[in-house]
Amino acid sequence: MSGLCELLDHGEVRADEIVAVLGKTEGNGGRNDFTRELCQRSLCRVLAERLRLDQDEVSRRVVFSLSGGTEGVVSPHLCVFARTGEALPAPRADKRLAIGVGWTRPFSPQEIGRRAQIEETARVVREVAASLCVDGTGDVHLVQMKGAIPPATFEQTRAARRGGSPLRSDMVHSRAASAIGVGVALGEIDPALATDDAVCSSWDLHSSVASVSAKPGLERSEVMVFANSRFWAGDLRIEHGVMRDILDVDTVAQVLSRLGIEYSTRPSEEQVARIVGVFAKAEADPRGTVRGRRHVMLDDDDVSDTRWSRCALGAVLASALGETAVYVSTRAEHHGPLGGGPLAIIAR
Amino acid sequence: MSGLCELLDHGEVRADEIVAVLGKTEGNGGRNDFTRELCQRSLCRVLAERLRLDQDEVSRRVVFSLSGGTEGVVSPHLCVFARTGEALPAPRADKRLAIGVGWTRPFSPQEIGRRAQIEETARVVREVAASLCVDGTGDVHLVQMKGAIPPATFEQTRAARRGGSPLRSDMVHSRAASAIGVGVALGEIDPALATDDAVCSSWDLHSSVASVSAKPGLERSEVMVFANSRFWAGDLRIEHGVMRDILDVDTVAQVLSRLGIEYSTRPSEEQVARIVGVFAKAEADPRGTVRGRRHVMLDDDDVSDTRWSRCALGAVLASALGETAVYVSTRAEHHGPLGGGPLAIIAR
Amino acid sequence: MSGLCELLDHGEVRADEIVAVLGKTEGNGGRNDFTRELCQRSLCRVLAERLRLDQDEVSRRVVFSLSGGTEGVVSPHLCVFARTGEALPAPRADKRLAIGVGWTRPFSPQEIGRRAQIEETARVVREVAASLCVDGTGDVHLVQMKGAIPPATFEQTRAARRGGSPLRSDMVHSRAASAIGVGVALGEIDPALATDDAVCSSWDLHSSVASVSAKPGLERSEVMVFANSRFWAGDLRIEHGVMRDILDVDTVAQVLSRLGIEYSTRPSEEQVARIVGVFAKAEADPRGTVRGRRHVMLDDDDVSDTRWSRCALGAVLASALGETAVYVSTRAEHHGPLGGGPLAIIAR
Amino acid sequence: MSGLCELLDHGEVRADEIVAVLGKTEGNGGRNDFTRELCQRSLCRVLAERLRLDQDEVSRRVVFSLSGGTEGVVSPHLCVFARTGEALPAPRADKRLAIGVGWTRPFSPQEIGRRAQIEETARVVREVAASLCVDGTGDVHLVQMKGAIPPATFEQTRAARRGGSPLRSDMVHSRAASAIGVGVALGEIDPALATDDAVCSSWDLHSSVASVSAKPGLERSEVMVFANSRFWAGDLRIEHGVMRDILDVDTVAQVLSRLGIEYSTRPSEEQVARIVGVFAKAEADPRGTVRGRRHVMLDDDDVSDTRWSRCALGAVLASALGETAVYVSTRAEHHGPLGGGPLAIIAR
Repeated sequence: MSGLCELLDHGEVRADEIVAVLGKTEGNGGRNDFTRELCQRSLCRVLAERLRLDQDEVSRRVVFSLSGGTEGVVSPHLCVFARTGEALPAPRADKRLAIGVGWTRPFSPQEIGRRAQIEETARVVREVAASLCVDGTGDVHLVQMKGAIPPATFEQTRAARRGGSPLRSDMVHSRAASAIGVGVALGEIDPALATDDAVCSSWDLHSSVASVSAKPGLERSEVMVFANSRFWAGDLRIEHGVMRDILDVDTVAQVLSRLGIEYSTRPSEEQVARIVGVFAKAEADPRGTVRGRRHVMLDDDDVSDTRWSRCALGAVLASALGETAVYVSTRAEHHGPLGGGPLAIIAR
Repeated sequence: MSGLCELLDHGEVRADEIVAVLGKTEGNGGRNDFTRELCQRSLCRVLAERLRLDQDEVSRRVVFSLSGGTEGVVSPHLCVFARTGEALPAPRADKRLAIGVGWTRPFSPQEIGRRAQIEETARVVREVAASLCVDGTGDVHLVQMKGAIPPATFEQTRAARRGGSPLRSDMVHSRAASAIGVGVALGEIDPALATDDAVCSSWDLHSSVASVSAKPGLERSEVMVFANSRFWAGDLRIEHGVMRDILDVDTVAQVLSRLGIEYSTRPSEEQVARIVGVFAKAEADPRGTVRGRRHVMLDDDDVSDTRWSRCALGAVLASALGETAVYVSTRAEHHGPLGGGPLAIIAR
Repeated sequence: MSGLCELLDHGEVRADEIVAVLGKTEGNGGRNDFTRELCQRSLCRVLAERLRLDQDEVSRRVVFSLSGGTEGVVSPHLCVFARTGEALPAPRADKRLAIGVGWTRPFSPQEIGRRAQIEETARVVREVAASLCVDGTGDVHLVQMKGAIPPATFEQTRAARRGGSPLRSDMVHSRAASAIGVGVALGEIDPALATDDAVCSSWDLHSSVASVSAKPGLERSEVMVFANSRFWAGDLRIEHGVMRDILDVDTVAQVLSRLGIEYSTRPSEEQVARIVGVFAKAEADPRGTVRGRRHVMLDDDDVSDTRWSRCALGAVLASALGETAVYVSTRAEHHGPLGGGPLAIIAR
Repeated sequence: MSGLCELLDHGEVRADEIVAVLGKTEGNGGRNDFTRELCQRSLCRVLAERLRLDQDEVSRRVVFSLSGGTEGVVSPHLCVFARTGEALPAPRADKRLAIGVGWTRPFSPQEIGRRAQIEETARVVREVAASLCVDGTGDVHLVQMKGAIPPATFEQTRAARRGGSPLRSDMVHSRAASAIGVGVALGEIDPALATDDAVCSSWDLHSSVASVSAKPGLERSEVMVFANSRFWAGDLRIEHGVMRDILDVDTVAQVLSRLGIEYSTRPSEEQVARIVGVFAKAEADPRGTVRGRRHVMLDDDDVSDTRWSRCALGAVLASALGETAVYVSTRAEHHGPLGGGPLAIIAR
């Protein structure tokens, strides 16, 4: 918190302009990761003091999207997004970073991982994107989500199984349906194909800008849309690409190039200093190989493949960029091709 | 084993010419890693059948240096070294890869991590290097070792502590003293400075070609020296560099350049196909930061920093090379600078 | 191996009379547990040398049922079963321990966790039990199994999912269907209720003598039946009970009492010395509580509930018996009530 | 928190009378266990609201001793100690539970694990015990401590090593010196033997009432003394015993007997309901065996022996008592004999 407090104390960021905080905390990223909660409470306390609000009011006002897992070289860090003023009255020539947030309606456990979740997710993504006054869906470069996983009792789980429609209210299916919902909203996926059966099965359906994690206990999915818009000002822009596998470091250079950061072998320190946020998702390839050789991540009962793949992805990005404050996330069902996933970068 | 069996069956490798096998197996690389043993027994059985020898005779004839830990994208693999014929009668113009092996005398638990281990290690490294007819110590590019850790009983450990000279017979100190021994042998470290107190303390003393792991239960250290020599033939050469930290991907390009493999952003498939072995060592920086930012590897009581740093190092090398069969090892006390370590590559 | 070698060398056990080896090895009991394989190969080598057979012949002749996971106080150990002579020509007054082994036919991935696996398992259990000349199914006290999990490719898995009948070829379902099969064979479960839908859902269906683990890659399930029979001699008998939860230490006293070992608070050393095998199965209660209080085993993404529950069960038994060589296994779907499971003890 | 809030809301406990909270939280009990911090902050917030104090003031007023690690069947729980009124003006015939708290002076990293820490700990324990008006040291049955581990930089650590007196500012040595300090204070250990060299070496020196954990970052050790005193009223008493090893379930019956709870095989539900706190410490025997057989806890590089031994100890106590809310702690250097440790029980 100390870095944020300093910025607030020096007036470089105003507490009442903060709309979202994305960050990586140092837990395991799984069910028993309490670092997200600890960080969020600390953020709420810091902002509540400055805004003279109750902590609960703060968490209704600001979106906190904290993701556990800073394996290997990845450094725990926060990206704090503040918005000053209103949308411009008339469009500028240049597009600038625009951010919007929204929430789905609450889901029942039975809806997760199925068409109901896909459609409601798509509806919210469309709505938030429209509110940013983008020229088209091509201006959306990152949809950062926490997918809902409403709690289900042992008895509900058993009843659903006996009813022939087993619950999918787990992290895998909530991420998968959310990503398909993003793809549907942005025209990447034909809605007719986005069926219950397609979830975790039709791997050719995917979004290249979704970045979804799922949170047990969450009843409504949280949606953050990052786009470039002619109606927003500031010095930031966002671009994205798709890593074809977890080692695909070439995509880093391509995305940076779209942001006007060009280099031959490695970006210079000045170029790296222009980067303010790196958001990537990839995974331990479910087919069991990377670049034609076996990997063992999926057979490890000591440490989850989610941890190994975040560690590997973080190291790939950090070595390419010389920067370890990268937001890496994993298990990327319907996020880009199998094994790979989307990469979005925000830069000045 | 199936790949090796095929090469043997097709006569591409002759069992009686095999002198050493280096490899990565998929265990945790710690005390309860049984994959090394399982792999070594399988190798012994394969070679024993073909050589019509007892398995114990095979393990006296061939050096097996199996290292556990293929975290993340690293693929389990074996590098099998075979030697045909004798040293050349007269030097060639070109230097070619030369390999020699040796063993220290057995150590007592009290000697590990102290001057006795340093000196005996240096003696053996010098002897093996000389046997390869190198022009000088500069021709030695990799000294791959398994450091001894003779077993000590609970009572021996207690007695040593009470006697004011606590045992150092652990992996940390055996690696450290071995690396200093290599540095002394090759003129990298002034023998006068290689004292008991310097071990795990005088971090400016280090070798840039040592690559040591340590094995509980081993009474004699195993030493493999890889050099370039005018008295050896074949189509292989070895070069090395020092990674200044675990993200130092630029060193990869420098070492490949010395092997005649030059490229702008990434090596081509043809260039990668020339590479036959990549051996690297680096570590979770003991000062707690990488490139100026905090890492959390050293405070993790769920998963060892050795596993995270192998995963990160493997991903860095694999993304730079497009090849996941890389031999990565970690905890690199007195191997290059703090946090970094040596990188050696063998190529055609 | 050293203990077994000594017994063989001293003639206390004859290699050609060994029919089965059950044992606990010190791995994680999961997919990447290589200790079972290492132990089995060592056993094969020891027996092959003495029987002057090929190692592959040994593994066709002797059933090796090695189970990973000696968490906490549980000591790695082997129970070696040897059979001398043939079945008696006429029944004795007393029943004695009888052992028989069998194998199911190979299964396809689609059959696992479904009725096909249940029925074939039941058939084999009935056949092996009959071969032991038991008076009735009540004489069967332990059916120790390794359930098949034939390998399925990524494409097979996807095709099954798209076909509306997702594969159940995992450890959970193979254990569950095997246990139901045992219950059907022994009259504990009405075959009409043993449907596809009942697996992992109708928790009231269970066997009180099944003890199943499942092994990825195994194509046929292995079945070992332990019973008391009038046609067998020797000084051993077996009895069983059902632990109602993982802490149910009272069942230990009840089973020992049936074996003629009676005591008030704790068995004496002489009584413990009569015990030659303790085989128990229980689990982290899937409802999330033990004795009315929350446990956290099922929300732990660092260490599997299988490891914690083996550790807890082993400690419960070891503290009750004063003996740490106990065979504990976990995840007990359809093995006794939820959270609990069967306990069988063999004693002189 | 919900249970505590209810008690406070119903007036069964008054916030201003709470002096200490001991509890088990569900983290790993190691350096990266954030559950203790999260729980403590939640407690502070709950109490701050009710006491209309700042959260920092609450944490100066109440001792929070939260210990991570509820492995296996152990249930996360809090024991909240409230004190009403003052010490009695004259002694009663019966002794009742008395609680006192204190803090050592801040330590330098160099003092930890050495005589300076022992002596200061002993001084505070004596002082707090005296304040409870006990008849003698025999009335003290539990000294619950958090041992200090002041932070040391990489450079301080290196300088100390080069100076010939390596830092001992780790969990092992802080626990060890604290326990010796308790033993010295209570006459269990001859102060003349409590030297620097004795720490983690003279295992015959131990306290039977100390229960110390150590907390990285803590500069002053926290001391809580639990005793029986004629000057205190209420319906609670405390007794203790020493488990001779981690399976020593007989000590449970002995301690309960001293509290007037007598039974033959297992305590009745009514008897269990009289128990309000169970505090035990034991460990994976450092000699590598339990009851004459090998255990593998100390060679496990996947999961710490601290976690396995807490799991085993918790299961032993829970199966003996039928109660899973037990406070178990591990690594018990100089706490009772090697492998074992103290057990204290508070009951009505």
